[in-house]
Amino acid sequence: MSTKLTGIAASAGIAIAKAFRYEEPDLTVEKKTDVDADSEIKDFDAALVKSRAELEVIKEKTLNDMGEEHAEIFSAHLLVLSDPEFVDAIRQKVQDDKVNASFALDELANQFITMFESMDNEYMKERAADIRDVSKRVLAHLLGKPIVSLAELNEEVIIVGEDLTPSDTAQLNKEFVKGFATNIGGRTSHSAIMARSLEIPAVVGTKSVTKDTDQHATVIIDGISGTVIIDPSEEELNEYKQKHAEYEEQKKEWAKLKNEPSVSKDGSHVELAANIGTPDDLEGVHGNGAEGVGLYRTEFLYMGRESLPSEEEQFKAYKKVVESLNGGPVVIRTLDIGGDKELSYLDLPDEMNPFLGFRAIRLCLEMDDMFRTQLRALLRASAFGNLKIMFPMIATLEEFRQAKAILEEEKQKLQSEGTEVSTELEVGIMVEIPSTAVMAPQFAKEVDFFSIGTNDLIQYTMAADRMNERVSYLYQPYNPAILNLVKMVIDASHKEGKWTGMCGEMAGDEIAIPLLFGLGLDEFSMSATSVLPARSQLLKLDKKDAQAVAEKALTLNTSDEVKTLVENKFL
Amino acid sequence: MSTKLTGIAASAGIAIAKAFRYEEPDLTVEKKTDVDADSEIKDFDAALVKSRAELEVIKEKTLNDMGEEHAEIFSAHLLVLSDPEFVDAIRQKVQDDKVNASFALDELANQFITMFESMDNEYMKERAADIRDVSKRVLAHLLGKPIVSLAELNEEVIIVGEDLTPSDTAQLNKEFVKGFATNIGGRTSHSAIMARSLEIPAVVGTKSVTKDTDQHATVIIDGISGTVIIDPSEEELNEYKQKHAEYEEQKKEWAKLKNEPSVSKDGSHVELAANIGTPDDLEGVHGNGAEGVGLYRTEFLYMGRESLPSEEEQFKAYKKVVESLNGGPVVIRTLDIGGDKELSYLDLPDEMNPFLGFRAIRLCLEMDDMFRTQLRALLRASAFGNLKIMFPMIATLEEFRQAKAILEEEKQKLQSEGTEVSTELEVGIMVEIPSTAVMAPQFAKEVDFFSIGTNDLIQYTMAADRMNERVSYLYQPYNPAILNLVKMVIDASHKEGKWTGMCGEMAGDEIAIPLLFGLGLDEFSMSATSVLPARSQLLKLDKKDAQAVAEKALTLNTSDEVKTLVENKFL
Repeated sequence: MSTKLTGIAASAGIAIAKAFRYEEPDLTVEKKTDVDADSEIKDFDAALVKSRAELEVIKEKTLNDMGEEHAEIFSAHLLVLSDPEFVDAIRQKVQDDKVNASFALDELANQFITMFESMDNEYMKERAADIRDVSKRVLAHLLGKPIVSLAELNEEVIIVGEDLTPSDTAQLNKEFVKGFATNIGGRTSHSAIMARSLEIPAVVGTKSVTKDTDQHATVIIDGISGTVIIDPSEEELNEYKQKHAEYEEQKKEWAKLKNEPSVSKDGSHVELAANIGTPDDLEGVHGNGAEGVGLYRTEFLYMGRESLPSEEEQFKAYKKVVESLNGGPVVIRTLDIGGDKELSYLDLPDEMNPFLGFRAIRLCLEMDDMFRTQLRALLRASAFGNLKIMFPMIATLEEFRQAKAILEEEKQKLQSEGTEVSTELEVGIMVEIPSTAVMAPQFAKEVDFFSIGTNDLIQYTMAADRMNERVSYLYQPYNPAILNLVKMVIDASHKEGKWTGMCGEMAGDEIAIPLLFGLGLDEFSMSATSVLPARSQLLKLDKKDAQAVAEKALTLNTSDEVKTLVENKFL
Repeated sequence: MSTKLTGIAASAGIAIAKAFRYEEPDLTVEKKTDVDADSEIKDFDAALVKSRAELEVIKEKTLNDMGEEHAEIFSAHLLVLSDPEFVDAIRQKVQDDKVNASFALDELANQFITMFESMDNEYMKERAADIRDVSKRVLAHLLGKPIVSLAELNEEVIIVGEDLTPSDTAQLNKEFVKGFATNIGGRTSHSAIMARSLEIPAVVGTKSVTKDTDQHATVIIDGISGTVIIDPSEEELNEYKQKHAEYEEQKKEWAKLKNEPSVSKDGSHVELAANIGTPDDLEGVHGNGAEGVGLYRTEFLYMGRESLPSEEEQFKAYKKVVESLNGGPVVIRTLDIGGDKELSYLDLPDEMNPFLGFRAIRLCLEMDDMFRTQLRALLRASAFGNLKIMFPMIATLEEFRQAKAILEEEKQKLQSEGTEVSTELEVGIMVEIPSTAVMAPQFAKEVDFFSIGTNDLIQYTMAADRMNERVSYLYQPYNPAILNLVKMVIDASHKEGKWTGMCGEMAGDEIAIPLLFGLGLDEFSMSATSVLPARSQLLKLDKKDAQAVAEKALTLNTSDEVKTLVENKFL
């Protein structure tokens, strides 16, 4: 009999394939003494060669598929394998103590890891993680239990695992990985966002998929409804093959909308834009017919390196994106670091509640030099297209005024140096803190636009960490409280002749889209792969209907009531 | 020349006295070998006796001044000193290794601490803290550098320190400790709340008072304006002696209001109530003429013990408070544990952002048995006076409905058992999560009352951990965003014929009081010592004036603008 699990629909699409259980092998090491040291060292060297070869392949693949930022981690791993301080110490220990190589490797690796981890420097702490990863790989070869690299899969599978880490997802090969299902995670977890970006169907947060799935069992993933079926019956298989075909058909229909305008049945226009992390994501923006970039997260420029990016480096990246959009709007968010995002080379404080801590604009206003460098790069790039600057985590008008004043100073400096800066540069803010939503009427007089960041706005409004499984039931995008705050922001902006966008996951959600359209949202920015389905959905909506439903939703009692209302009316 | 520091006015009043620098002595231990073991053991036993005697005194004093809950910690310390596993091991080590007693103590204490700390049980982790405290005390005697116990001070001083811990403040003797000044902390930090409860003038968050103050220097603390003056000039001394006299005069005036009603100049009545933590606090409630208890924090019943309190124990505590108020309202909040408040005997999860985590009602709804026991105790106590039940951290209507349903079940059970329960029991919620403030119109149809918990509401609305010094500038009670949310709650409750109270620190704040009165707040619940000043302030206010100022404040841009408006108009 088949087993049916319900999880969170993380990435749309239907996949049917054999399960590939992704788990770590048992790498427990036994100590042996009086070994033949030369033979052990030979084995060790062979394991090194194999590990290096694997890493080269993975790095190359990642570079091609995902770009330089993602490939960095594997360069770091290769560096460890060439570090004589590390590998010579292992050979020496085998020689001196006459112990087996796996024992020497395990012991020395742990020593290095402990040492690096105890350092008060984030960069060094990351080195500990590198050593752990690499040692595991070499150890696996020594023990004859090689770690299966996801990059090396060469048959069609559905990956089943506890969770996928960034370095796991960086290796996924779309040709063979047809989908994945995990025990933990939510719609905004890293693996879910990655799955949407790669267009791989995924269901996360199933709680028990690893327990319920045998290796090579047939698995169906329905990333539209959030269903996983293990060992499906013939009937189920046929049903989902049919659904798969229908979905593929629908994708073809969507593809036809690539160059069409984003309008509703009654001709109301909105802007459908995409969120990006690096210039590498531009392909997805154009391939999915996005009209602009509603959120360029500049953090990635600062990550996976050993020092701050220079003004020139940043300028080139921003210019590339702006030019590529060919006059289309590009909203670039200034550095949003801190909270759960660390930079190895900045010594940020450890905090009891990092999501309520020293991050984003709070940190940038204090690290003035770093902030000015980014602003200069942005101002210079603004001359090459339709660039807009957006400040994250603004909680008070004073913060906005302070950030804007610094921007103006740098603008004047550049202009007095004869550098061209756009004269039409818009400066806006993320609305992701409840105080800012409530104060929208006051803010609207001073900013050029709002972009509602729902991932954070929801977690602060509900006082529930969206990464914490125990309170994830409170992450409720359709809660009338959220809708009322969204309305306050949109109404305030329109009253002052400004516009409001949204760049959280909610903007691409099919339940939320009719509500947001009804509330008057001007710009919807989402994962690039959601743009065409959204455009298709919009085409079927009537503004008056959407307005009536949205008005009704504002007065309902619960998130579930709102969901049911929209489903009954529009889906 | 005198030094003037500005900090946060934590507890009102003026104090002038010699500085007592409260800092830990240097307890570095040297290892000596080939010692006379018998002589060392004799010294060790003498140090034990002295430490025990000290602890007995401190415990007794704490019991008398602060009640049983606060004295618990010292019982735990005494227990460590009688534990043969610990003290015999030290004697044994001195005997066996012929090392000095201080070395043996230090080494064994560290071993025990490491062992207890590594355990995954909060109760055991607290044992580690006890051993650390006690070992320090014995070690100090052994080294001839006794720790000055704050309980033993016998001349008038102003304590100057980095910060005061709960066990420090538990020992403060009002007779000799005239005030304190610390480097860190805010108005809602533990030491500040304690100072107000003890009516000791205090200024916290001065950043540098320990650096700027020599032992025995003359210090002036102005807990009204938040000023600390070190080595004051003759002129300054006279000025503050004058201020001190005026403040004492004012206190006498306030005392006359003890049995007066809480009315404004134009005769509008509000309720001025007090926040309490244990029945021991009732003395302050009555002594300061509070009309009711607006918040009874039941956490203390659960703290400083090794298992959950029984229904009977809780019933007695609740009954005592309710009866003592003699018909006056007593709002009892159900258990608000989690976040920064742990219970040693409950194994709560470690969380990345505990303030956004599994706490209060979220936890009670899952720990059903514990919750029902408390509700039964509350229901039984309701027959003895004017008891109201309040649920903390409600974020959604579903949570309230679920909690209310459990309450109803227990009520029916009690009634069918023939136990009397009040027929007029009101059931309300804390409004401390932004979603609940925004959803107040919906909630007002189902709850009997609201009580706004500003400490949490402000930190969530501004997305700033109020314990985190780096973002404490965002803890802004007067921010128009907060005032607008407060207004939404009050208006919604009145529309449904319900009432709204406030039980955060803001309710007793002299800038906030005119605003809250103007917005129509029905009940103000505060530190008992703030009740008479608030009543005095209210007497001078006119409702129409307050309304006009509050309306204006809602439209202002910043917290500073609001503060200036109120100061110019009313202070």
